[in-house]
Amino acid sequence: MTQKIWGGRFREETDALVNRFNASIAFDHRLYAYDIEGSMAHLRMLAKQGIITAEETSKILTALEEIKVELDRNEIPLDDYEDIHGLVETALIKKVGELGGKLHTGRSRNDQVALDVRLFVRDAIGAVTDLIRDTQSALVTLAEKNFELIMPGYTHLQRAQPVLLAHHLLAYYEMLKRDRERFQENFKRTNTMPLGSAALAGSTFDLDRDMVARELGFDSITDNSMDAVSDRDFVLEFLFNVSVLMMHLSRLSEELVIWSSREFGFVTISDAFSTGSSIMPQKKNPDLPELIRGKTGRAYGHLISLLTTMKGLPLTYNKDMQEDKEALFDTADTALICLEVMCRLLQEISFNAEALKAATGIGFLAATDLADYLVRKGMTFREAHDIVGKMVLAATDQGKELHDLTLDIMKGFASEIDEDVYEWLEPSACLEKRNIPGGTGPEIVQKSLNKAKEELKN
Amino acid sequence: MTQKIWGGRFREETDALVNRFNASIAFDHRLYAYDIEGSMAHLRMLAKQGIITAEETSKILTALEEIKVELDRNEIPLDDYEDIHGLVETALIKKVGELGGKLHTGRSRNDQVALDVRLFVRDAIGAVTDLIRDTQSALVTLAEKNFELIMPGYTHLQRAQPVLLAHHLLAYYEMLKRDRERFQENFKRTNTMPLGSAALAGSTFDLDRDMVARELGFDSITDNSMDAVSDRDFVLEFLFNVSVLMMHLSRLSEELVIWSSREFGFVTISDAFSTGSSIMPQKKNPDLPELIRGKTGRAYGHLISLLTTMKGLPLTYNKDMQEDKEALFDTADTALICLEVMCRLLQEISFNAEALKAATGIGFLAATDLADYLVRKGMTFREAHDIVGKMVLAATDQGKELHDLTLDIMKGFASEIDEDVYEWLEPSACLEKRNIPGGTGPEIVQKSLNKAKEELKN
Amino acid sequence: MTQKIWGGRFREETDALVNRFNASIAFDHRLYAYDIEGSMAHLRMLAKQGIITAEETSKILTALEEIKVELDRNEIPLDDYEDIHGLVETALIKKVGELGGKLHTGRSRNDQVALDVRLFVRDAIGAVTDLIRDTQSALVTLAEKNFELIMPGYTHLQRAQPVLLAHHLLAYYEMLKRDRERFQENFKRTNTMPLGSAALAGSTFDLDRDMVARELGFDSITDNSMDAVSDRDFVLEFLFNVSVLMMHLSRLSEELVIWSSREFGFVTISDAFSTGSSIMPQKKNPDLPELIRGKTGRAYGHLISLLTTMKGLPLTYNKDMQEDKEALFDTADTALICLEVMCRLLQEISFNAEALKAATGIGFLAATDLADYLVRKGMTFREAHDIVGKMVLAATDQGKELHDLTLDIMKGFASEIDEDVYEWLEPSACLEKRNIPGGTGPEIVQKSLNKAKEELKN
Amino acid sequence: MTQKIWGGRFREETDALVNRFNASIAFDHRLYAYDIEGSMAHLRMLAKQGIITAEETSKILTALEEIKVELDRNEIPLDDYEDIHGLVETALIKKVGELGGKLHTGRSRNDQVALDVRLFVRDAIGAVTDLIRDTQSALVTLAEKNFELIMPGYTHLQRAQPVLLAHHLLAYYEMLKRDRERFQENFKRTNTMPLGSAALAGSTFDLDRDMVARELGFDSITDNSMDAVSDRDFVLEFLFNVSVLMMHLSRLSEELVIWSSREFGFVTISDAFSTGSSIMPQKKNPDLPELIRGKTGRAYGHLISLLTTMKGLPLTYNKDMQEDKEALFDTADTALICLEVMCRLLQEISFNAEALKAATGIGFLAATDLADYLVRKGMTFREAHDIVGKMVLAATDQGKELHDLTLDIMKGFASEIDEDVYEWLEPSACLEKRNIPGGTGPEIVQKSLNKAKEELKN
Repeated sequence: MTQKIWGGRFREETDALVNRFNASIAFDHRLYAYDIEGSMAHLRMLAKQGIITAEETSKILTALEEIKVELDRNEIPLDDYEDIHGLVETALIKKVGELGGKLHTGRSRNDQVALDVRLFVRDAIGAVTDLIRDTQSALVTLAEKNFELIMPGYTHLQRAQPVLLAHHLLAYYEMLKRDRERFQENFKRTNTMPLGSAALAGSTFDLDRDMVARELGFDSITDNSMDAVSDRDFVLEFLFNVSVLMMHLSRLSEELVIWSSREFGFVTISDAFSTGSSIMPQKKNPDLPELIRGKTGRAYGHLISLLTTMKGLPLTYNKDMQEDKEALFDTADTALICLEVMCRLLQEISFNAEALKAATGIGFLAATDLADYLVRKGMTFREAHDIVGKMVLAATDQGKELHDLTLDIMKGFASEIDEDVYEWLEPSACLEKRNIPGGTGPEIVQKSLNKAKEELKN
Repeated sequence: MTQKIWGGRFREETDALVNRFNASIAFDHRLYAYDIEGSMAHLRMLAKQGIITAEETSKILTALEEIKVELDRNEIPLDDYEDIHGLVETALIKKVGELGGKLHTGRSRNDQVALDVRLFVRDAIGAVTDLIRDTQSALVTLAEKNFELIMPGYTHLQRAQPVLLAHHLLAYYEMLKRDRERFQENFKRTNTMPLGSAALAGSTFDLDRDMVARELGFDSITDNSMDAVSDRDFVLEFLFNVSVLMMHLSRLSEELVIWSSREFGFVTISDAFSTGSSIMPQKKNPDLPELIRGKTGRAYGHLISLLTTMKGLPLTYNKDMQEDKEALFDTADTALICLEVMCRLLQEISFNAEALKAATGIGFLAATDLADYLVRKGMTFREAHDIVGKMVLAATDQGKELHDLTLDIMKGFASEIDEDVYEWLEPSACLEKRNIPGGTGPEIVQKSLNKAKEELKN
Repeated sequence: MTQKIWGGRFREETDALVNRFNASIAFDHRLYAYDIEGSMAHLRMLAKQGIITAEETSKILTALEEIKVELDRNEIPLDDYEDIHGLVETALIKKVGELGGKLHTGRSRNDQVALDVRLFVRDAIGAVTDLIRDTQSALVTLAEKNFELIMPGYTHLQRAQPVLLAHHLLAYYEMLKRDRERFQENFKRTNTMPLGSAALAGSTFDLDRDMVARELGFDSITDNSMDAVSDRDFVLEFLFNVSVLMMHLSRLSEELVIWSSREFGFVTISDAFSTGSSIMPQKKNPDLPELIRGKTGRAYGHLISLLTTMKGLPLTYNKDMQEDKEALFDTADTALICLEVMCRLLQEISFNAEALKAATGIGFLAATDLADYLVRKGMTFREAHDIVGKMVLAATDQGKELHDLTLDIMKGFASEIDEDVYEWLEPSACLEKRNIPGGTGPEIVQKSLNKAKEELKN
Repeated sequence: MTQKIWGGRFREETDALVNRFNASIAFDHRLYAYDIEGSMAHLRMLAKQGIITAEETSKILTALEEIKVELDRNEIPLDDYEDIHGLVETALIKKVGELGGKLHTGRSRNDQVALDVRLFVRDAIGAVTDLIRDTQSALVTLAEKNFELIMPGYTHLQRAQPVLLAHHLLAYYEMLKRDRERFQENFKRTNTMPLGSAALAGSTFDLDRDMVARELGFDSITDNSMDAVSDRDFVLEFLFNVSVLMMHLSRLSEELVIWSSREFGFVTISDAFSTGSSIMPQKKNPDLPELIRGKTGRAYGHLISLLTTMKGLPLTYNKDMQEDKEALFDTADTALICLEVMCRLLQEISFNAEALKAATGIGFLAATDLADYLVRKGMTFREAHDIVGKMVLAATDQGKELHDLTLDIMKGFASEIDEDVYEWLEPSACLEKRNIPGGTGPEIVQKSLNKAKEELKN
């Protein structure tokens, strides 16, 4: 039978189906360490305020420590309880008798669960940002290792202009940098202490909320008890931040999938990080990036789930809000495993220099540079663009690239063109011309790499 | 170490992290009964087609039955396997040796998982539609039991016109009726057999796909192997149908929450189907409808999750699609428990006749009828609407209802008004005038109840 | 000043900001033809029932026809009205005087808007299903035209097995076929007539609802007035069906984008159906499939939008529901334009036979067939799979394909292999072996094409 | 015919359908002021860098100013253009001839559109945060005006404990404060200048990106050109921040709807801010909060829309991304109008002091305080909770409130209870006991009000 910490005004036992439906213990037991940590801080404060005696405090603290150890060891069966708060309180009363009933003085499950969830999100943000940094490091390492490699930059999945592979990889560094920032701001809003809000109106006891905040490492205390027990913004922010993070990882994953196709052949993933087929003996599949890409849906789904749940709820706490936890936990787990896998995967891929070089040579990737060349010779950009377009068309008809056209033929399109055009069209020359801040020139990319390494040190 | 059913062309062992990330056994083990059922049907067909011998078939069938029993009893540890298909095949080979390797003849995990998921959805639809019918029955029973009760019908949460409570409850009957229809159509598209599609191109063996379909109770076989292994429409439909179902339940839940507020006081939920507060001794909360309402977010989330995952995937199977299962399982579980709880809850609520009657008497609920009265006396509806609006304003100023106004005062607004107006404005008279098909008149509502009971018999 | 069809009980003019916020005329004017059509049917019924006279009816009908013409010609400024219903009624009163006030007899905006939206969805479904059929036809035509072409079938974007291009295209035919089915079922549930429900409780007038239904081509009338005015299931279904349709189109689009990359080079899109770059003169971009793929987000968004809006609304009509229309209109427009573009685009692409052939020859696409070959020689499939995997590895090391290995070398892996293996490994032989129903064998694909053409005739 | 700024390499005219589908001018014309502002800054920089002459610059600047004026006046028909960038460039060339073709030097539409959208979001954030502050002010004003009012605080829509109405209103102040913070952080990440990234790889011209940033008021320049043209994080953040804002407004709206029901009767909305019914003359509906609540779906939908579109896009720009704008524009418009309406609405509601007082007196709202009373007398909280629960049950049976029980009866439950209990149970006493930080005590709430007013000054 489920054990409850309420019931005086009820005449009938709760129905078994109701217990099964209502109980959150199946998932919120995951918060047990936070719940006990919060209870201990609350207790020490009650003692300091003279609301309970030092002796009582000591007994309860010892018992809570034991309960923590028992939960660490899975020694307390979960099924008998409504939620983790009830479990801990009941276990406590079993150990210390009636005295245990004092723990809940000046507290409600409403502010308690708000506290526990904040402690969880705080840790989750820490773990996620650590792994984001590791993934950024992996990108930087990969970029440095392959600094010499030039590849086609794409728009619309069409070859556009030559870029340094390092430049391409650093684009993801930037995305992850924004992700980290968002999580840090998320942390700031998470790190405020709700205890003392009681059910919704604040406690009648003379609680020292600041002391509890200090004990638990919070920066501040919440300013309005009604808001404090019905606020899940910090969870929504976490879900959103993971959604954007996953979107970024989905883009990198898409590229890894495309690049490891036989047609592109830019990348080889190690055997240890690939999988096979139950029927096709030759298959070696990029399952990891595919699965990361697929898990983007999971993050979006959880975000919509909690947004939907919170929509239109009157103040203050409503049972609907119990639905926050599973979405949160699964989102945190998803972010962590995907980052861990991506980080390792980036160490397990090798680039095929031949394929990259060959791809960069075909597809008129220097066409923009040729237009810019003509601008330097006095044309307006729009004219130059038009003329180069016609040259591309002519070359295509002859199965040639721009640099395959003779100077005579080129001059037929624009008399301004000189012998120096051939050097100008070299992929490496295209890069050298782009040492503008943010550009793909080797010098500026090297600077970006250095800057990134500096940032990662902090 | 994870056991795999591929690997010949791989030089390195799969990394442990990769196994942990890729493996679906933690959730797809739930498909084991379907997987074995499908394997047995496949096997019997292989035998009939002479692809394996009767003796071999018999040995494998016996072993599969044993494995089924062992899985029923949780005797096979899951952690060592990549997925349920690998688990079953490996367990089989342990039992019958090399021979077990014949089971996968003419089959791929791609068509196998498509089969298993279809079998799951088929059953889930069956269970959900059964519970929908039960909930419809509970609504009908509740409506019949309270057939005499009149209550305010609302628009914009403002009292609008008197309605029969039974009529209000039957509105939900109609919603659930559409839900059932949608699930039945979902079933039809689910009930087609994909096996024989192999990895993507169809098998090279002379399989009798129709026989497998018959054995497994499918209506038809899939028509295109590439579509068959990459189609998850039937899962999406299920997720959508549950989303709409949950939306309906969220509306009913919202009403139950509002109706059990002290301010409305229309409904009392039994103690056995309510819960209390850890801090406020007086509280009796409508947790159940709140939680159902909250779980709507979960359904919407899973729908968006799989829609997102499927977006932009090239043919045919991609690993992303592994993400279909957890969303599906949780959605099915959510629908089933919410229906079960709602169905029971409807048996545990009682309506407060006094409160309903009092509420129906206040708020000018007969104003439309008064306008219609004036139309019958020759006014256009627009004039009548305007005059009654002014009468409402005057009555409000005097703290009166329309029927409290004297005939003289009424005639001051419209000379057409006669003594018979008072009877005309009675709530029961308002109902009697609405025996139009679909209306709230007692006769027509009784007919709807009878029709509903007929429909539920089938 | 906004003209209203209510206001008797109001002391103050509505605030201008409120009018601006509340008014739906900016978008619901699009329903005008449906609104007038519905009003005419309602009117003829009122006349038949003797609620208004023949003469009155005739005057109003004539005026409504005039208003229809004026709206067709954009001669009525929209800004002065709250919604399309108010606009029509006010215009009517301007034309025929007080008499126009009779049109709203026995009707509310609640059932009127339900009617108008149903009429819109009915037409939208018709237009969408027509274009789906056209797109299916374009797929069939393209498949027939390129029937000889063999290409790599993919899983995980890795070459898997040879397939007929026609078979690949028919996979999309199947998806669209399910889409059509879903829309047809959606139509069925849309095609029921809500008028007579009035505000929520049914009308007090003796309306002949069946007559109105017949006049407007509805199959049935709604069964419960409270449900009728608060039901938007049929809109949600439409939004979902378009979401799945767009998901299908996004997959085809993704393939067209990948196929028209220089690396794949499978497809050329005509110049008339491609676009260029403002800066890069050489670019020819597959903008159309990209934009279709991108618009998938739009469909998903609208679906979530209305699901969110409907969540937790108490019965019956609430103003929130006004939000259904813009999502609906934009979804219909999106589906129609995307289908129209995809349909035309399929006529503007040409396949590169050389590239397809070359791609099919490389990547061990016959490996599964070799395993099946060994099964026919007596091996279990699992053994065969393992051996072929090792052969693939060996061939890869030598930069060879399977068919490049000498018979001796092959026999070293499996003595069962004979000279006939080389023929067995030919792409065309791989296809011929797959004339199983649903497979990619030319005979069976031809049958599927014929079946498709039959279906399209109906 | 649509005028294009590319086309040299194209042999065929773009198809009319393609133009219609691809063109973004119908919505991106809204960016024209930003586009011209950006072009002017770009131009001045080109001049300073000596890439174009002072005279050329002057001519183009003058022409751009003219074009701005013409667009302000709607004098340029939009239909002929692909997008706003093409429109401006074409209009420029019409005015200054070939020279106009120089404007696009060192620029691509990819970085140009990134710039325009950033300028738009920057302004949108400014406007939204201003209105958030206004709404916060309206809350503070309303709270001050009604500072004396005590009302029931709710959990689960059940009366829980007495709270100050001001405290309740300040909970929304807190939510909006977090919203403002999020938008400000959003601004920070938006306010970085992408121009100079060109198509994707950076420009070959010697651009002074920092100068352009300064001219346009940006804090920094983007660090990676490939990221700069494919980053829409700042748009997603805006969509998310509006979604959370709308969620907050939906909660307040739900409360306003519930509070203005006749059953609650806590609030009266002015006639000027209410609407009526086309059929029911007595109706006065809270349309405004309902519509705000309903528009929450719109915000969530747009968020999911863009998240979906961005999922899995390879670098760098893809046409899919054109879909960002309509979602963005509509989200900004929705946030602005909803805030404006809510802000005004808060000035148009009046609270019914009688109803609030009556509601606070019934429902055992002091039960927690009674338990706390017993704790002070030496009981553990859990015992006290249980005893008070039983007292509530007994009182309920007698149709009484706690304070109606005689001291004798009370002592029967707990001998510790004394005469002072009656004072202790007064609503005002319940408040006085809660002057803990964050609590609902009048002193602390007054401090919160003062703090809020301070914050709003900044």
